[in-house]
Amino acid sequence: MIRFACDYDEGACPEILAALTATNLEQNPGYGMDPHCAHARELIAQACCKPGADVHFLVGGTQTNQTLIAAALRPYQGVIAAQSGHIAVHESGAVEATGHKVITLEDEEGKVRAEAVDALVRAHWQDADHEHEVQPAMVYISHPTEGGLLYSLKELQALRQVCDHHGLYLYLDGARLGYGLVSPQSDVTLPDIARLTDAFYIGGTKVGALFGEALVINAPAISRDFRYMIKRQGGMLAKGRLLGIQFETLFTDSLYTRLAKNAVDLALSIRTALMDRGVELYFDSYTNQQFPILEKKTVAALSDKYTFSHWMDIDESKAVYRICTSWATTREAVAALLRDL
Amino acid sequence: MIRFACDYDEGACPEILAALTATNLEQNPGYGMDPHCAHARELIAQACCKPGADVHFLVGGTQTNQTLIAAALRPYQGVIAAQSGHIAVHESGAVEATGHKVITLEDEEGKVRAEAVDALVRAHWQDADHEHEVQPAMVYISHPTEGGLLYSLKELQALRQVCDHHGLYLYLDGARLGYGLVSPQSDVTLPDIARLTDAFYIGGTKVGALFGEALVINAPAISRDFRYMIKRQGGMLAKGRLLGIQFETLFTDSLYTRLAKNAVDLALSIRTALMDRGVELYFDSYTNQQFPILEKKTVAALSDKYTFSHWMDIDESKAVYRICTSWATTREAVAALLRDL
Amino acid sequence: MIRFACDYDEGACPEILAALTATNLEQNPGYGMDPHCAHARELIAQACCKPGADVHFLVGGTQTNQTLIAAALRPYQGVIAAQSGHIAVHESGAVEATGHKVITLEDEEGKVRAEAVDALVRAHWQDADHEHEVQPAMVYISHPTEGGLLYSLKELQALRQVCDHHGLYLYLDGARLGYGLVSPQSDVTLPDIARLTDAFYIGGTKVGALFGEALVINAPAISRDFRYMIKRQGGMLAKGRLLGIQFETLFTDSLYTRLAKNAVDLALSIRTALMDRGVELYFDSYTNQQFPILEKKTVAALSDKYTFSHWMDIDESKAVYRICTSWATTREAVAALLRDL
Amino acid sequence: MIRFACDYDEGACPEILAALTATNLEQNPGYGMDPHCAHARELIAQACCKPGADVHFLVGGTQTNQTLIAAALRPYQGVIAAQSGHIAVHESGAVEATGHKVITLEDEEGKVRAEAVDALVRAHWQDADHEHEVQPAMVYISHPTEGGLLYSLKELQALRQVCDHHGLYLYLDGARLGYGLVSPQSDVTLPDIARLTDAFYIGGTKVGALFGEALVINAPAISRDFRYMIKRQGGMLAKGRLLGIQFETLFTDSLYTRLAKNAVDLALSIRTALMDRGVELYFDSYTNQQFPILEKKTVAALSDKYTFSHWMDIDESKAVYRICTSWATTREAVAALLRDL
Repeated sequence: MIRFACDYDEGACPEILAALTATNLEQNPGYGMDPHCAHARELIAQACCKPGADVHFLVGGTQTNQTLIAAALRPYQGVIAAQSGHIAVHESGAVEATGHKVITLEDEEGKVRAEAVDALVRAHWQDADHEHEVQPAMVYISHPTEGGLLYSLKELQALRQVCDHHGLYLYLDGARLGYGLVSPQSDVTLPDIARLTDAFYIGGTKVGALFGEALVINAPAISRDFRYMIKRQGGMLAKGRLLGIQFETLFTDSLYTRLAKNAVDLALSIRTALMDRGVELYFDSYTNQQFPILEKKTVAALSDKYTFSHWMDIDESKAVYRICTSWATTREAVAALLRDL
Repeated sequence: MIRFACDYDEGACPEILAALTATNLEQNPGYGMDPHCAHARELIAQACCKPGADVHFLVGGTQTNQTLIAAALRPYQGVIAAQSGHIAVHESGAVEATGHKVITLEDEEGKVRAEAVDALVRAHWQDADHEHEVQPAMVYISHPTEGGLLYSLKELQALRQVCDHHGLYLYLDGARLGYGLVSPQSDVTLPDIARLTDAFYIGGTKVGALFGEALVINAPAISRDFRYMIKRQGGMLAKGRLLGIQFETLFTDSLYTRLAKNAVDLALSIRTALMDRGVELYFDSYTNQQFPILEKKTVAALSDKYTFSHWMDIDESKAVYRICTSWATTREAVAALLRDL
Repeated sequence: MIRFACDYDEGACPEILAALTATNLEQNPGYGMDPHCAHARELIAQACCKPGADVHFLVGGTQTNQTLIAAALRPYQGVIAAQSGHIAVHESGAVEATGHKVITLEDEEGKVRAEAVDALVRAHWQDADHEHEVQPAMVYISHPTEGGLLYSLKELQALRQVCDHHGLYLYLDGARLGYGLVSPQSDVTLPDIARLTDAFYIGGTKVGALFGEALVINAPAISRDFRYMIKRQGGMLAKGRLLGIQFETLFTDSLYTRLAKNAVDLALSIRTALMDRGVELYFDSYTNQQFPILEKKTVAALSDKYTFSHWMDIDESKAVYRICTSWATTREAVAALLRDL
Repeated sequence: MIRFACDYDEGACPEILAALTATNLEQNPGYGMDPHCAHARELIAQACCKPGADVHFLVGGTQTNQTLIAAALRPYQGVIAAQSGHIAVHESGAVEATGHKVITLEDEEGKVRAEAVDALVRAHWQDADHEHEVQPAMVYISHPTEGGLLYSLKELQALRQVCDHHGLYLYLDGARLGYGLVSPQSDVTLPDIARLTDAFYIGGTKVGALFGEALVINAPAISRDFRYMIKRQGGMLAKGRLLGIQFETLFTDSLYTRLAKNAVDLALSIRTALMDRGVELYFDSYTNQQFPILEKKTVAALSDKYTFSHWMDIDESKAVYRICTSWATTREAVAALLRDL
């Protein structure tokens, strides 16, 4: 069985496993106060061109989103997201669990548009009874989106501008950030993201780590006492070094980028092959996730050799499927798939 | 100035004021443990044809919704509502404040349809990753809706059926219940509602009381320890007798119904007059709220004599306005309005 | 039956009932945006010598405490209270319901001492792992305390100083504030309280109103968007005028003080009579609550004529009882009690 | 530097590292639905003599406590713990973050006594106003306690009995469970714990794993939909296999017990040596944590070679220190310590 269903089906890239093994018997203080975390923070700050940036390591994405959002908002405030945003649909109410509403914008392929934010926030404040509504206070985007799409630099700048105008935070969920940064369609760099957002995270779990997300906070009001927040939300890892060691490894010799590039290159070769065969793509993704519309029976026929994710039905006979590549995907696996498809 | 903007611009109906005055120097135990509350509970149970029903009195609607929903749901569960439902837009996140998501259904004039609930719940359970989504566990409807529309008995029965099928609670927000019950378009009685829902409240604030809502709970699992819930949510009134006395009065000699009827009769006379003049109505309401589409300049010209609620813009020159009548609205006020309009 | 069990067994003082009746047919905008609320705010600001003070009206005390505390604290922060503090034991977890811990100090007759606060906060920050503990951020006191005791001006000043030193808010629960202000033992005035606290409330429910507490907020960071907080917590009264009218009445012609004085005078006459008879008092209270230690059988013998609150057992035969007077207590009732005791 | 400060200063035991390496390139479904988790669940159920037990793997202890407690309690309920219990003092309000109060019992060396629980719960229900207090619904204990003490079988049985009597859940935090099970002072087995509690967790983080706790739930009402709860609380690990592989390894060939035994044997040799030298021990611990009262200057003199935890001051010159051993502690390190002390 070759699994294309998602990008976290394997363990960690070999470099991380080697680093964990090499450091295993070191004695280190717990809770992220060790030298590996310190070093990893420095490497990430450098990569962001943000010396002294406030970087925190957490185990998973939902935990990161929940903790950051709860730290940033006052109780009656909410966070704006696309209707298909991860926090809106796939986190079992983790944001609501902290007392906050996710305010959804009608979906435009999973992207949040500056104009839509502007209209929503204006409408809120124009309402005579605005105190009876949740106050919008943050914009949440994911980059790439759930469907593998990317914000252009111009789009990010427009979001920054509308957030500045209305006093909103801009938060970017980078669960698959690596795959976005190396996409040939991207004109956005890590320093751009660090400069344009109030907080964002660099996903490790889906880009080569065993687990782990590196959260970069640019707004001092959110940074304040953030370690209390992590502990309160149950996210403080006792052996915090594990996160430090992994991100230290990923941000040494551009490993993070190299891992991402392997996945994107292979995904694009699948993309090209699919398009050559006239297969329609549901999202126009240039990242590690591809969303072909396939005959259900075709997929059924392949189901003893490959796994894909069923994304949504188109009609009785066709559906959108998700094919993911990862740092671990091999040319051979892709070649086999393209042969069999 | 004559206010048609909303139905809680006055104090209480004279009967209530008289009852409060008559009982003022009585000494009673606090927190709803007094004879007036006991009597009012009995009268309501009778009116519902539910002897021994579990009735609680709360001060306001948002508080009632928040407390009931928080008592009914497990932490990861959510409540289904129309996109324009009161809990979805006009309660400043009071439901989310208790940790629960409001799951919205696309709006069909503010009504929740059994088929839409069925589709949503089926989709949840069919999703392989359903544990990553908020579990739908309750349907919230308001009757009349925000736009003054009514569920038919058949529609309520269909909702009951879909809730039974999927193990959902059905909760009815009756902030304006009186105005619904007396509407000539209604084929639904109070006992029908008591029989078909797991909980509902009979709105007092908007139907003649100073304040107060009578919550009737039909599901023992929600009833359990409900007084703790009221206290925890900050809703336990020290002088609980005030609620008992008001509902005792409203449910004696059909006062509740009579007050509602005055409002609906007058609203329907406005409705007829508007239609006669060719004014379009945004919602086809047969209750105490009417929603004419009027020229903004017409309304502006009347603004030193009358208040209406601005509901939403239609275009640059026209908007939907809400005209409310109440127990306190007089024939003279309506006549003046119709003369001036 | 004459009830001395608590101070909210009656309705409202006659002046309030008259005011509610006189204004009943006025039409006013809802939610506290009416002229009566505006006027009451002004009168209270004047009484506090705080022109332009931020005053909000809420229905009950638990609701007020919960809303204020949730507005003031960041998620990982807690509020310090005496072990017997109302928020610590008698609010069914209303503070925890908003996500915050009540950090209790060992009880010194229900009072919080500046030195104890200082020691607790120092210990927190000295702990190397302080991020693993709830951060103390507010001191909650009640004045009078649950046991009817009063803070002296010097004690309040010391609390202010320790709060300033450590960056804590000082919040005073004034459910029975009137009874404290008029006590012959008090050297604290309303302007003192307004000057020395970050927020406090003036209790109406227990001092002559049907219901209602006037919350005065002196810290701009807490005031910010406070009406959203009230709505979110389910505490926004639709007919907000009812609160305005009541406090307007209470703060006209010193009615609030006069009502309180009646209660305290009568309580002190009970106190003197009890002491004359050699009855021991559990708390040395000079306010409207007296706490004699009585033989259980004595109380049992009186139980068909009077109600008291059982406070706590001393031993098999004796217990502490609470005797409350209120604005409504008559000389005759007290005389009868003293005759029968 | 040799670290005795805590028992999670190293990485994982070599067997776990080997297993992670051996399985690294396997492709597995995420979120704990993989064969390693299934196998580990089975092994743990066997070890508990509870075939088919409901076992869940979480990353850390605070997360486990928070999730389990929030799943078990209704909103107005609280959990009883010792004043020094981990949930009461060292989790930054993680339990309160889910809306629940931690009700503390006066400390008896960190242990919760059945009689104290009984008295507290009786007092709650006897209070006429019990609805105004948080309802006690669960007892939380840790075994070993924070101070390394153990419950005897008789004590556990008494707790079970009082919980049954009052309808409370009994939950055992086993962060260091292994060290308790192998203690020569213990008469409690893993099946005893599985039989006597409603839920408990087997700590991995502090007993040889990189991270991970195995939660065993014996009460169906808590088990219900527990995976939703994990996700909602941000605790669902994407590569859940990592937890499965670690517990699979720990519960194969009694590795968990062997690792614990090494630590306890070495701790007891330290204990004996300390006692031989007349050093007083603050807690009478027979587990991997020892709490000698030492001269501060002695500890200072050793501070460039060893780390201990400062537990609490005794006076100006003396303090209680915590010395921890772990699976990774060597005979050589202990010998060096005893030589230098």
